[in-house]
Amino acid sequence: MNKVKVKFLPFNKTVEINKGTTILESARLADIHIQSICGGDGVCGKCRVILKQGKVSSLTTSLLTPEEIDDGVILACESKVFEEVQIEIPPESRADEGEILLSARAQKYLDIYSAVEELEPDIIHEAKILFSSPLATKLFLNLAPPSLEDTVSDLERIYRELRKIGISAIQTGLFNLRTLSKFLRQNNYQITATLGKRNGTTELVFLEAKDTSKTNYGLALDIGTTTVVAHLIDMVSKETLCAIGSFNKQITYGDDIISRIIFASERKGLEKLHLAVIDNINNLIQDSCSKKGNIKPDDISAVVCAGNPTMLHLLLNIDPTYLRKEPYVAVTNEMPVIRAAEVGIRINHRGLLACAPGVSSYIGGDITAGLLVSDLAEKQDVSMYIDMGTNGEIVLGNKDWLVSCACSIGPAFEGSGISSGTRAIKGAIQKVKIISPNATPSLETIGSTKPSGICGSGLIEIISEMLKAGIINRAGKIQPLKSQIPNPKSEIIRPGDEGLEYLIVPKERSATGRDIVLTQADIDHLIRSKAAVYAGISTLLKKMNYQIKDVQRFYIAGGFGSHLDITKSIEIGLLPAVPIENFQYIGNGSVEGARMILLSYIAMAKAKKIADKMTYIELSTDNIFTEEFVSAMFLPHTDLSLFPTPIY
Amino acid sequence: MNKVKVKFLPFNKTVEINKGTTILESARLADIHIQSICGGDGVCGKCRVILKQGKVSSLTTSLLTPEEIDDGVILACESKVFEEVQIEIPPESRADEGEILLSARAQKYLDIYSAVEELEPDIIHEAKILFSSPLATKLFLNLAPPSLEDTVSDLERIYRELRKIGISAIQTGLFNLRTLSKFLRQNNYQITATLGKRNGTTELVFLEAKDTSKTNYGLALDIGTTTVVAHLIDMVSKETLCAIGSFNKQITYGDDIISRIIFASERKGLEKLHLAVIDNINNLIQDSCSKKGNIKPDDISAVVCAGNPTMLHLLLNIDPTYLRKEPYVAVTNEMPVIRAAEVGIRINHRGLLACAPGVSSYIGGDITAGLLVSDLAEKQDVSMYIDMGTNGEIVLGNKDWLVSCACSIGPAFEGSGISSGTRAIKGAIQKVKIISPNATPSLETIGSTKPSGICGSGLIEIISEMLKAGIINRAGKIQPLKSQIPNPKSEIIRPGDEGLEYLIVPKERSATGRDIVLTQADIDHLIRSKAAVYAGISTLLKKMNYQIKDVQRFYIAGGFGSHLDITKSIEIGLLPAVPIENFQYIGNGSVEGARMILLSYIAMAKAKKIADKMTYIELSTDNIFTEEFVSAMFLPHTDLSLFPTPIY
Repeated sequence: MNKVKVKFLPFNKTVEINKGTTILESARLADIHIQSICGGDGVCGKCRVILKQGKVSSLTTSLLTPEEIDDGVILACESKVFEEVQIEIPPESRADEGEILLSARAQKYLDIYSAVEELEPDIIHEAKILFSSPLATKLFLNLAPPSLEDTVSDLERIYRELRKIGISAIQTGLFNLRTLSKFLRQNNYQITATLGKRNGTTELVFLEAKDTSKTNYGLALDIGTTTVVAHLIDMVSKETLCAIGSFNKQITYGDDIISRIIFASERKGLEKLHLAVIDNINNLIQDSCSKKGNIKPDDISAVVCAGNPTMLHLLLNIDPTYLRKEPYVAVTNEMPVIRAAEVGIRINHRGLLACAPGVSSYIGGDITAGLLVSDLAEKQDVSMYIDMGTNGEIVLGNKDWLVSCACSIGPAFEGSGISSGTRAIKGAIQKVKIISPNATPSLETIGSTKPSGICGSGLIEIISEMLKAGIINRAGKIQPLKSQIPNPKSEIIRPGDEGLEYLIVPKERSATGRDIVLTQADIDHLIRSKAAVYAGISTLLKKMNYQIKDVQRFYIAGGFGSHLDITKSIEIGLLPAVPIENFQYIGNGSVEGARMILLSYIAMAKAKKIADKMTYIELSTDNIFTEEFVSAMFLPHTDLSLFPTPIY
Repeated sequence: MNKVKVKFLPFNKTVEINKGTTILESARLADIHIQSICGGDGVCGKCRVILKQGKVSSLTTSLLTPEEIDDGVILACESKVFEEVQIEIPPESRADEGEILLSARAQKYLDIYSAVEELEPDIIHEAKILFSSPLATKLFLNLAPPSLEDTVSDLERIYRELRKIGISAIQTGLFNLRTLSKFLRQNNYQITATLGKRNGTTELVFLEAKDTSKTNYGLALDIGTTTVVAHLIDMVSKETLCAIGSFNKQITYGDDIISRIIFASERKGLEKLHLAVIDNINNLIQDSCSKKGNIKPDDISAVVCAGNPTMLHLLLNIDPTYLRKEPYVAVTNEMPVIRAAEVGIRINHRGLLACAPGVSSYIGGDITAGLLVSDLAEKQDVSMYIDMGTNGEIVLGNKDWLVSCACSIGPAFEGSGISSGTRAIKGAIQKVKIISPNATPSLETIGSTKPSGICGSGLIEIISEMLKAGIINRAGKIQPLKSQIPNPKSEIIRPGDEGLEYLIVPKERSATGRDIVLTQADIDHLIRSKAAVYAGISTLLKKMNYQIKDVQRFYIAGGFGSHLDITKSIEIGLLPAVPIENFQYIGNGSVEGARMILLSYIAMAKAKKIADKMTYIELSTDNIFTEEFVSAMFLPHTDLSLFPTPIY
């Protein structure tokens, strides 16, 4: 008897596992996803769970306090199960709770025909006759039956009809041919053909009986490192029927891109990561079809995915190893159009899957898609696109040129790697006001519940408020409070394990029963993150001989971006000091761009033009970037002339 | 115990079968192929076998003489096995014995660049840079490794190198991408890329380590209704390394195209026919690789097939039903280029398979391929191409126009449907001389052994000789011999079941122990066959307002064609009366054309041009054809002015 049961609370989900399995893995088998930044190495401490019944075999760890150990807290990755146990997973350890940015906040991009003059005439021609999806345009064909005077083949009969409306050079595979003759005759030559652009030619993807051209659905996907968002699109009305998201199931194997790439190199690691995201996608397909009761997965004819290069490599089960090894090379930046079924995505078994084209190993289809939404690449004015996540991607340019870079921001703004950091989940501190250095700060949390930690936007507010209140100096160093009564228990600024720390919420008032603090190490970490973004911005400008004032508009994208307080971001020197009206939130530009590509030949052609036109500058080995990074390590910056008060 | 054993002699092959299985099917399971013209319906009598031991359950049949029944002769299709038996299969009942025309007899077609002016410039451009196979051109690439200054993706690195030599618009699938990064690095970026043209784009078919560009093999196939012929080609030296053939295993399911199409509509019929020919091909691949010990099937990168439309439909498992139903429509005349593995052909698992393009439901890739060999379509002079098998295909034209028709000749010239007919196997009568109507004719047989029957070319000789000797009149009717002694036992011309018959070999001297005769029905049958060919020829000419003398050259193709005595064929009115030097044997033009397509972009483009240019005239509903057919029902013809003596 090598199997034992693990029950997970509060879900009341029980799973039978092999003895010796970790709780982290057991939870994954129960389809419950526990946070694990380090990928199960026992170093991040994010996978805290509570042992409610039974015993486990745990390694000792310095990450847990004696109080936590008394309360039954254990690390899921370091605890193996050998007997029946019950485990409670507290909300802050769950990977699948939190707010997911489902849609774009940019103005709806209506005029797809703008700025088409630089596209090839045949693309515009095809777009105009097909006027619909480049992957799944449905056309009803009422064919003339063959006669002794007209004996062209069954397939040629279809092609001939398509040529009449201007579509030539079509191809198809064996599947459609094998049953074509009976199919045509049984349906009196009245059929609907679904056409898709596939790697340079037009493919007859599948055929349906009678006129089904009014029933055509597609899926736009944003595959993020943290979240996967799906839009179910009616390709006839072009409306989004349903927008849903879930946390990327790959999180169990590592929180960020680098840990995923490393995991992919382990035995079966790549396959596990691949299957995890495919499972995400299939669940989203099931869920969105269930929400719209009359749509079946089989009715979905096409999928367009946008995502960063690592996510797209993993989606297609392509080895991502060299994305993270100098000189940082992708296997391909333009994934081939394939049948979705080839990677196990359950839509129509003939349906196609395309990915938004990328530029380099760090500038992927998510950025190309976002630029499509922003229309930065169609204006004469020079603008900048900033996507902030664990990685920051920055694009500068206009309709004539585009230059991009990527910088490692680290997970601080996503609430990871910070002692009291959390994702933007219920209870996360997102607004902070510090009235006096001596007083407890006033807070607002998501959902107005007891505070459980600090999310990215909250951290920016706290740093800004601490700077204004004089709690930290311009170097980010916490200043001891001279006037305070020297009682460590009640101190707001107090000595911690690594220098001074700032107490935001004492454990008596926190949801976790632990103090919510900001340590000197946390602040240093945050300053490095904001310095990376600002240095990226200024390096790109210097390379192109531009100044901040030359940039007409700053587009802010990414899940983080939408919660951001622009004023406070400028105050800490994360964003440049320009009038607030020059900033525009894009929101989830990735999924919105994927939707545009799904619906329009022209958007697909434009995305390729954007990718082709964009130059990538590698910052990790760039001297200018190093200098800019050092200069940006102050609050807001070494050079205060860049941050005049109050330009913003 | 529902299994019993059947032993086949003289092969000493034993097979275990389910009780109740017919001997025909049991033989098939033992990979022994018995002739079966009717497809197992018990009407053709070609599947005679001898029961040597044990008992079978046979239906009574009028096809066997009392002597045969005494000797243990049974029909394989009408006899079911319920106990252990031994069965002898006489040579004349074997489908896999006989001479197969392995190669072309035309002068070797050397100048592939002739008459290219009408091809698109990009085809000529591609052909000139790739100068090799359109399906599997191997190119050694010595790529520059990536650096921080050169970070294009792994795939783009290959594409960029290919663009340098003028090859653009390349595509590839997931398979190559999944392992590309490690593959390139393990091989120091020195790799060989195999490129193939696939439905309009250039595909990166597969990649190999180091320089393998000097090791590249292909297979040219002629898939005939009766025989399958394979040429193993060294695609570097362009030499044929091995030419072998086998009888089409589909013969077990029916001798001619019509019976195969009917069989295909039965349950699992299509699949059985498909698997039979795939089995043929895989055996030929194995055998040709074995003959050349150092070549493995995996070394074969590409296959080109030529065949009639039915054969190509069955090859790709495509429903052929409507090829034989008015208005006679193919599913497609241009089969898509697929991966050979998709239909189970065992070469390199990524290798491509292409079919020569056809024109209509009766003019297939075998004719297009043959025309390529003949260069009829490149000359200013008007010529005619005649392919005679069970079906006859005739093409008239020159470099500006091509018109074709097909006529049903029937299996007489292949030795079927004639009481003493046989294929061109050992013992078949192929030369005949009749000195006097009273005397036994003098004969030559293939292999100079005891006569077993009359093959196609022998039949033409006999008809010609009988006409000259006055045994038949111009209507083909056998004339009673007045001078003969009226003893039925020794009569050379004697009454049979259906009128008079001509005794060629008495049973005492035949290999089968049966009289070899030509009945009035046989002669009528042969006259219908030859009339169909001649009527096809004259109808095409009339439609185009041409006369026989306007045709500069007659190309004769097909397995039958090569054994044909042209003079005697003219004497009976099968071929038109023109000087013998105006005829040219092509031999197996189908396999030779397939070889040309396998080796050259230009040949592939030319084959498509030929197919596109060719008009097809349906004769089955044509009044001119009907008139011409009736006129040709005399020997040599109603209109003797067409056959002046001795123009030939």
